[in-house]
Amino acid sequence: MCHKDAIIYRFLNQKIIMMRKQFYFLIAILVMTGLNLYGQQALQRPADIVSPEVREDHTVTFRFMAPDAREVKISGDWMPSQSWIPGKELMVRDEKGLWTYTTAALPSDLYGYSFSVYGLKSTDPNNVYLIRDVASVTNVFIVKGDKGDLYSVNKVQHGSVTRRWYDSPGNEMQRRVTIYTPAGYETSKAKYPVLYLLHGMGGDEEAWIALGRTSQILDNLIAQGKAKPMIVVMTNGNVAQEAAPGESSMGLYKPTMQLPNTMDGKFEETFPDVIKFIESNYRVKAEKSGRAIAGLSMGGYHSLHISRYYPNMFDYVGLFSAAIIPNDKATSKVYENLDKSLALQNTNGYKLYWIGIGKADFLFKNVTDYRAKLDGIGMKYTYRESEGGHTWTNWRVYLSEFVPLLFN
Amino acid sequence: MCHKDAIIYRFLNQKIIMMRKQFYFLIAILVMTGLNLYGQQALQRPADIVSPEVREDHTVTFRFMAPDAREVKISGDWMPSQSWIPGKELMVRDEKGLWTYTTAALPSDLYGYSFSVYGLKSTDPNNVYLIRDVASVTNVFIVKGDKGDLYSVNKVQHGSVTRRWYDSPGNEMQRRVTIYTPAGYETSKAKYPVLYLLHGMGGDEEAWIALGRTSQILDNLIAQGKAKPMIVVMTNGNVAQEAAPGESSMGLYKPTMQLPNTMDGKFEETFPDVIKFIESNYRVKAEKSGRAIAGLSMGGYHSLHISRYYPNMFDYVGLFSAAIIPNDKATSKVYENLDKSLALQNTNGYKLYWIGIGKADFLFKNVTDYRAKLDGIGMKYTYRESEGGHTWTNWRVYLSEFVPLLFN
Repeated sequence: MCHKDAIIYRFLNQKIIMMRKQFYFLIAILVMTGLNLYGQQALQRPADIVSPEVREDHTVTFRFMAPDAREVKISGDWMPSQSWIPGKELMVRDEKGLWTYTTAALPSDLYGYSFSVYGLKSTDPNNVYLIRDVASVTNVFIVKGDKGDLYSVNKVQHGSVTRRWYDSPGNEMQRRVTIYTPAGYETSKAKYPVLYLLHGMGGDEEAWIALGRTSQILDNLIAQGKAKPMIVVMTNGNVAQEAAPGESSMGLYKPTMQLPNTMDGKFEETFPDVIKFIESNYRVKAEKSGRAIAGLSMGGYHSLHISRYYPNMFDYVGLFSAAIIPNDKATSKVYENLDKSLALQNTNGYKLYWIGIGKADFLFKNVTDYRAKLDGIGMKYTYRESEGGHTWTNWRVYLSEFVPLLFN
Repeated sequence: MCHKDAIIYRFLNQKIIMMRKQFYFLIAILVMTGLNLYGQQALQRPADIVSPEVREDHTVTFRFMAPDAREVKISGDWMPSQSWIPGKELMVRDEKGLWTYTTAALPSDLYGYSFSVYGLKSTDPNNVYLIRDVASVTNVFIVKGDKGDLYSVNKVQHGSVTRRWYDSPGNEMQRRVTIYTPAGYETSKAKYPVLYLLHGMGGDEEAWIALGRTSQILDNLIAQGKAKPMIVVMTNGNVAQEAAPGESSMGLYKPTMQLPNTMDGKFEETFPDVIKFIESNYRVKAEKSGRAIAGLSMGGYHSLHISRYYPNMFDYVGLFSAAIIPNDKATSKVYENLDKSLALQNTNGYKLYWIGIGKADFLFKNVTDYRAKLDGIGMKYTYRESEGGHTWTNWRVYLSEFVPLLFN
């Protein structure tokens, strides 16, 4: 290439860590032309730092370059937390200023973590895998072997994931929805059953696909023959917004939990808009036996009330760490005659009413009370009590256990 | 709600800034039940910090809480850079330790930025909008008004964006592709033209949709009547990988520029696999006049060689900051008879051969030489010379200018 001296001078520049796209491209060209100087760089440049390093034995090492820091800590999902405060562990500095921390062998799962340096929370600059949860963005990694395998992309046939807009006359707006169609859907002539999968407070149509690993879980369960091929429709349950933060005309605003009209009956009441859209536009089993609805937390609440308010619409209902009882201000007609509609849903019949809750969940008592109510009216349900609380760790497990029970 | 005392105790806990999902949910429940204590929190908690704040007058204020830091700097796309090193500006500390920086009025565009604190690069913890570019993840914001409007989601009809897998027999693998279908495609009976849009070195099938704002640009241009409704197919041009980092069975590895087989002819040779998939599975104009191909940098190189190697396949070709000449080791048959196939492409005819390059681009001379070659054989092209260099800022502009010229 031309200007070789200038290129090499730049290449050796210690500021390489700030390099931009065009500089990367130059390197690539050097590599292609055989001028591979890459190996001559000092170790411990960011390009050389691997973090996290997940080992076969399930230990994980984190690395963070901060030569001038006096202390760097790491906080992760797997650490015991005390009254809402996640645990923190000190990292260890080497002579070059690289801080490391290695875990004990971790159970297979998807984990989040962050660093703390100079009292500031920091993401891991060497890990590009980040997932947004409401207003925070967290690095993640997967320890394979068990659940982690189910949450990973494997060498199997993959479904498609589409972000699409549909008309919701009940909300007088176009709304965004995330739709998983299983491998083979596009070329098949068969009609598919549909799982409507609802997010919690602060979530949106991106929550289940990103935090919930829905497409990976479905791809894997279907490939293993453990789940029927099905379409999964991940709606936006906040009727005040058209789409997830950044995906609507509201622009790139700061997300918040405090959205209006989230549990006031409007989403439940207008849910047929979604069903109508799916059943008009996809090759689906447009009947009760081909419909499931499930959700976490607020989405569990929505699933409970939608399936009760439309008491002959779903053969499968899943309540994951669900909120149960509407608050006093929720005066929608959706919440009138709660007991009566539940009894009607029971009389109409259904194939599965699945309730999952963690022992440490702050909604545990509410769910226990609700189970007593169901017992009182003789409404059958499958109950799954897990360890832990109100976490995505549990919701991924619940989804993985719920999906194989559908459409059999 | 139950356990009100315990909830309030937790709620007042100063460690609220570390709060997790379940805690957010508690707040939401408190809000719903009228117990809104939210306003009583100290100011300047992360929930109160807005950063960036983009104003109507195009000034932008950034905020970063770091009470103990002696210095915080900000580096952004809009600052002049010196020999690959981006500019940096000092931020100003207030009495509470909140550092701020306000720009002059910025031209409407999409920008990236980062903070530097204690010598460490940091993302903005108050901005959840991040885009990955190869191995780095950068916060972005949009200044509206002109180009920024084109890159924003507006109140228009929206197309669908699908991540899907297709079979590539030529590469003996399933490969992932991102497909934009314009609003109305699903319910129309019309056949649509297709733009194949290719990424650069280190990119993948996520690059154009994320960094390139393809779906926003297409939605807006189509809604304004400035572009024909078209399908945009964003392939993965790295034949060694099935999918973008994190989206294949290679797991959550650290991305790199140094992929094998990126410019060795294999992608060009096997490109008909993509076309065959699209034309078998979508309602498209399966003819030369319904096909465009364009790409940036390596993707421009791919577009050049694919359109020449299959010299009667595309009526529209776009080379954005394109690499041009294969390196000495690229011995694929694709690169044999380069001049002859180019002449044949010329003889066969086409409607548009579009070349865009920035004056400061390190490939400027290569493109100038290539233009001389085209002039030499009388091969017509539209030439667009812009300011700036090898940047997404330019590629978004080129896409915005190229798309209205297609399929007229």
